[in-house]
Amino acid sequence: MTPRVDVADLVAKARDGQPRAVARLISLIEDASPRLREVAAALAPFAGRAQVIGLTGPPGVGKSTSTSALVAALRRAGKRVGVLAVDPSSPFSGGALLGDRIRMQEHALDPGVYIRSMATRGHLGGLAWATPQALRVLDAAGCDVVLVETVGVGQSEVEVVSLADTTLVLLAPGMGDGVQVAKAGILEVADIFVVNKADRDGTEQTVRDLKYMISLGRREVPGPIWRPPIVKTVASRGEGIDDVLAAIAEHHDWMSTHGELEQRRQRRAEAEVEAIAVEQLRERLGDIRDQHRGSALPLLAKRVAAGKLDPYVAADELVTALGRNGHETH
Amino acid sequence: MTPRVDVADLVAKARDGQPRAVARLISLIEDASPRLREVAAALAPFAGRAQVIGLTGPPGVGKSTSTSALVAALRRAGKRVGVLAVDPSSPFSGGALLGDRIRMQEHALDPGVYIRSMATRGHLGGLAWATPQALRVLDAAGCDVVLVETVGVGQSEVEVVSLADTTLVLLAPGMGDGVQVAKAGILEVADIFVVNKADRDGTEQTVRDLKYMISLGRREVPGPIWRPPIVKTVASRGEGIDDVLAAIAEHHDWMSTHGELEQRRQRRAEAEVEAIAVEQLRERLGDIRDQHRGSALPLLAKRVAAGKLDPYVAADELVTALGRNGHETH
Repeated sequence: MTPRVDVADLVAKARDGQPRAVARLISLIEDASPRLREVAAALAPFAGRAQVIGLTGPPGVGKSTSTSALVAALRRAGKRVGVLAVDPSSPFSGGALLGDRIRMQEHALDPGVYIRSMATRGHLGGLAWATPQALRVLDAAGCDVVLVETVGVGQSEVEVVSLADTTLVLLAPGMGDGVQVAKAGILEVADIFVVNKADRDGTEQTVRDLKYMISLGRREVPGPIWRPPIVKTVASRGEGIDDVLAAIAEHHDWMSTHGELEQRRQRRAEAEVEAIAVEQLRERLGDIRDQHRGSALPLLAKRVAAGKLDPYVAADELVTALGRNGHETH
Repeated sequence: MTPRVDVADLVAKARDGQPRAVARLISLIEDASPRLREVAAALAPFAGRAQVIGLTGPPGVGKSTSTSALVAALRRAGKRVGVLAVDPSSPFSGGALLGDRIRMQEHALDPGVYIRSMATRGHLGGLAWATPQALRVLDAAGCDVVLVETVGVGQSEVEVVSLADTTLVLLAPGMGDGVQVAKAGILEVADIFVVNKADRDGTEQTVRDLKYMISLGRREVPGPIWRPPIVKTVASRGEGIDDVLAAIAEHHDWMSTHGELEQRRQRRAEAEVEAIAVEQLRERLGDIRDQHRGSALPLLAKRVAAGKLDPYVAADELVTALGRNGHETH
């Protein structure tokens, strides 16, 4: 947006721990700034130090309260902490809403904590593309731990948190029957289950349902298997948070021992590189012109909508045109 | 999977209204069968007849019950109805869970209703790629109305239902504060809000919250504006369902009058063609070999994870290699 951004200076300041520089860099990512290449190049050597914890769960289970409690506990342990709250794009609000951030106020003045909501402008691939880049900023800024909290519960959101070193899935009693939770597709990605609001009626039932669902889904696979523990918390009072941290540490040790940590970080890098490449290709598809220099995609889509062309043939035409003039258009 | 599938025969039978043929065709889509090109070509001439209604909302608001009640009402009006319940992929269950389908049992023996859960195998672009193709099957099978219900509430899910002719967003009283709902990014895509379970305490508060959030988000845009109505229902007793259908009809008329219907169907076709093209390109990226004939992406990602390469440069290498040998690999 602002061409005079001094990327090298911003990165140096972020590495020096200046929150405004961290915020500016993440804004460049949100805005899909053309300067991102420079940012990525400057950050690359400092990647891969932070421990990345993913946190997801249905609305109302207390994700933000839990994140805040985890931040407090990690701070007591002397860790520098980054929080990345990934919100779906909102054309209305321009992104993040205020509600959650209020709950995080207690950490607002702590220089050892970066808290950042990130909107992703709603284009497909948005979360997959932007989250790892924002992680890299917090990583380079010296965070020992980065918590990635997703606000929605959908395919993209689950995929994003599942790329963390350790993924926490939060549930709460009385959230409707177990099927509702299982449907969200989040059971499979959990390294640790957290049943929050565990002072409420129905906690034991939720734990039982969860154990049953886990048992249903368990498959025999070769090699060592991590069995996701179930931890009960009352995040609003900080209860059980140390147990969550202990479970995270145990999972981290397990992964290190079994080579899984390296594999996950490899997968995360693959997802990041692929997402950037796919976005580049998607942009090029949108840039393709037909012989009359009109935009090709809408014209092809019009014929598809009218039943005159099938969508595969239309896609073939686009992909072939990309091969022909993909390098001319850029 | 089964190379001996006779696609032309299946499509003819689906058009003839045979439910097993419809189910087989949708399974081919779920499985990303290589025969899909033939399916798409055979279905293309019969596209664009069905009215497509999207339905989303947080877990526990009664989406399945509402869908079932809408199906019953549409059947009474003599319509043939398709239901597509889009579930995130579940490596555990192999896709759809049983819970919802039980609620749909009452329609199981009705030959005028097709009900289909669809899993999308969790690859990025899964929903965007598979949903329009499955819609096309139900469309060609003679459904007057297709209801697309998404189970998750995330970026991809919201994008998928927002491509419908009319998008219903379901809420319920006591689902937590309004912010929880707004965060899911679903307010913006609603053509009609449905407050279900409207016999419960807190209904009027939910309606007020909703009106307030809508007023916050309203922007002055040029041209005619559709103001999303709020309809109260008790879907389990069928109450208010006729009001929902009336609101859908009103929205449909409004869109037809203002050229919006054609625009939405054009956008849906664009999204479909783009998703197919992007998936093709993504597959080709995965097929790229380096000079030692190793898979290029994992090797590049390894260097990115180690901080030796930045992800943009890695992506550039992939995209350049695609331009070089993209046409050789296929």
